[in-house]
Amino acid sequence: MPVLVMKFGGTSVATLDKIKRAAKRVGREVANGYDVIVVVSAMSGETNKLVGYVNETSPMYDAREYDAIVSSGENVTAGLMALTLQEMDVPARSWQGWQVPLKTTSAHGAARIEEIPTDNITAKFGEGMKVAVVAGFQGISPEGRITTLGRGGSDTTAVAFAAAFDAERCDIYTDVDGVYTTDPRIESKARKMDKIAFEEMLELASLGAKVLQTRSVELAMRYGVKLRVLSSFEEYDPNAGTLICAEEEIMENKPVSGIAASREEAKMTLVSVADRPGIAAAIFGPLADAGINVDMIVQNISDNGETDMTFSCPTDQVARAKSALDAAKENGAVQFAELLCDPDVAKISLVGIGMRSQSGVAAKMFDVLSKEGINLKVIATSEIKISVLVDRKYTELAVQSLHDAFELDKV
Amino acid sequence: MPVLVMKFGGTSVATLDKIKRAAKRVGREVANGYDVIVVVSAMSGETNKLVGYVNETSPMYDAREYDAIVSSGENVTAGLMALTLQEMDVPARSWQGWQVPLKTTSAHGAARIEEIPTDNITAKFGEGMKVAVVAGFQGISPEGRITTLGRGGSDTTAVAFAAAFDAERCDIYTDVDGVYTTDPRIESKARKMDKIAFEEMLELASLGAKVLQTRSVELAMRYGVKLRVLSSFEEYDPNAGTLICAEEEIMENKPVSGIAASREEAKMTLVSVADRPGIAAAIFGPLADAGINVDMIVQNISDNGETDMTFSCPTDQVARAKSALDAAKENGAVQFAELLCDPDVAKISLVGIGMRSQSGVAAKMFDVLSKEGINLKVIATSEIKISVLVDRKYTELAVQSLHDAFELDKV
Repeated sequence: MPVLVMKFGGTSVATLDKIKRAAKRVGREVANGYDVIVVVSAMSGETNKLVGYVNETSPMYDAREYDAIVSSGENVTAGLMALTLQEMDVPARSWQGWQVPLKTTSAHGAARIEEIPTDNITAKFGEGMKVAVVAGFQGISPEGRITTLGRGGSDTTAVAFAAAFDAERCDIYTDVDGVYTTDPRIESKARKMDKIAFEEMLELASLGAKVLQTRSVELAMRYGVKLRVLSSFEEYDPNAGTLICAEEEIMENKPVSGIAASREEAKMTLVSVADRPGIAAAIFGPLADAGINVDMIVQNISDNGETDMTFSCPTDQVARAKSALDAAKENGAVQFAELLCDPDVAKISLVGIGMRSQSGVAAKMFDVLSKEGINLKVIATSEIKISVLVDRKYTELAVQSLHDAFELDKV
Repeated sequence: MPVLVMKFGGTSVATLDKIKRAAKRVGREVANGYDVIVVVSAMSGETNKLVGYVNETSPMYDAREYDAIVSSGENVTAGLMALTLQEMDVPARSWQGWQVPLKTTSAHGAARIEEIPTDNITAKFGEGMKVAVVAGFQGISPEGRITTLGRGGSDTTAVAFAAAFDAERCDIYTDVDGVYTTDPRIESKARKMDKIAFEEMLELASLGAKVLQTRSVELAMRYGVKLRVLSSFEEYDPNAGTLICAEEEIMENKPVSGIAASREEAKMTLVSVADRPGIAAAIFGPLADAGINVDMIVQNISDNGETDMTFSCPTDQVARAKSALDAAKENGAVQFAELLCDPDVAKISLVGIGMRSQSGVAAKMFDVLSKEGINLKVIATSEIKISVLVDRKYTELAVQSLHDAFELDKV
């Protein structure tokens, strides 16, 4: 029988009634002839509660204990989903990560999946079981300790199962009905897309669209897993949601598919650093060691052998970034006159595969923003995206004017 | 190094502050030179919440899923206790049941411990770890599914670890400061005992004293594990609590040591069953299969080849008992005219090793109750206890009058 993977996020399993609602969708796919693997998150709020316990107990916690604690919410939902399906006469059972076993690296808190043996679950499908309910987000390390895959990791669990079982599709049920051209809370004319390419989704996910964990999209792209994002609260419709698929399957060819806005950005500038070979490594090495997610990097033109180096990072990492750079200055690894920090910026990004073949997108973007009087602080581009940092107060204005200018509300 | 087992119940780990308080006691025993095995329950209220979810989802639940769900609370506390100890610079780590592995039978919901391999934890003690924190109540079946040991099962976990590791003692920390002659909420003159024999504790535990799970006392008796019950909220005192030990170690020789009262009892009577060989098996076989904990059994004198059969069971098992008996009637395994149920009874029991050698205890008990106008519905006796069923409304009156009459407030 063909295998379908269905993943339900925390809001989709937040109460017993919602679990029942999700189970009905699963039952329908069983009736459609699928063997189903259901991946569940913890009931919404549970994981935050557990993370809160850990942080209060031990600010510099042992990540192995963190994982053992925070993974427990998914175990509860997996069992409840299996019971709910059984009540509907759908043969089902639950699996915790270590029971599959979903083997991961030992990088506790952000482990990577190494292998998912399929024999155990496949054998149960052969015995008449119709649904394997898997606790998302968790796995087991080579040392036999419980690991977790990072926040949002259940998406990655789902895609990894879809790849391992060669599933026909991986449906991600969530509290939104698909992927939008931009955040509908910012731009009411935002339009739900029927299809989007893996590469575009990857840029949108990592840029703060928050619909899917970035790694799940990477994994889907690598293994060619068809991914669908849809709402667990809408009526059943086999064509609902947004399909994330290979570029070739998409007919539209607009230059821009979507706009992402990320508010939690900070801009930091090192003033008057020596412009010599190896200076970038001397700066960004310590930042990487401190676990700072440096995003955009811009180096100004050199003046008298000195230059200014600007980069962006999440606002909540500013303090750590500062102390890493101060330490590097202290021990002589890097010299700079001053460290400027602008914690109130936002990143606005245009994403679209069409950019590859159509020129003028960047020029049009700059023109639109300039007409609104929005100053650009940093610009960075890739093959399929253009990102700019602007004052945070302009976030809505920037997104709305760009959405209009590129006519994203029209198919 | 000598090993000490310390078990903390749900109220002793109900909040992060209480976990910290418990961890301090553990730290003190480490300082006293022990390698410590800590067994923890779920934070108080957690297991009830999870059991509630299961019952609401599926009244006739799959016990394997029940176990996977309700065991998760202990995982959280074990991790938090390990982190708290680490914060105090005490080397500690947590173990879930399957990691030890604590091997059990497949009797989900009421599994029996079969084996606790010690090599894994012993090796860690050898490497300098001082505390192994073990999630109580849970184990793993031969099929690799999570099992639980029944409510209060963490006591049994603790005693089993004490036996396996040949521990010097097993300290059970709870919300009471020891074992009392009767429930102090019922009789304010109830007195804390310094020592009690295994056999007496066994009767008191199984009769509803709720201080310790019955099986933990059985296990302690079989393996000669010295068991101490004490409060986690009192100041530290090496002689606190009640020691549960072999009969020989106790000097007192009163006929009655304690009085237990259990309110959640129901009396069921099968009217007019055929009085033929094998009838008891025909009745109690299906009840056992349905997992009913039948307690007292009384058969009336036969009349015309027919008899009435009366038994007691926990009130929350009445519905299941009824449907098991109705099914047995349906398929012809047993005939009866009527099934009567009195759900409002309580069981009052006198317990004392002294009864073996002193006669007249039963007569005195019946006399005391009769003078209070309390009617006895069922009577059952053993070597060291006498139990009666009475209307539930007489519970307090019966306990108080018996406590007075047998002078249990005096040493």
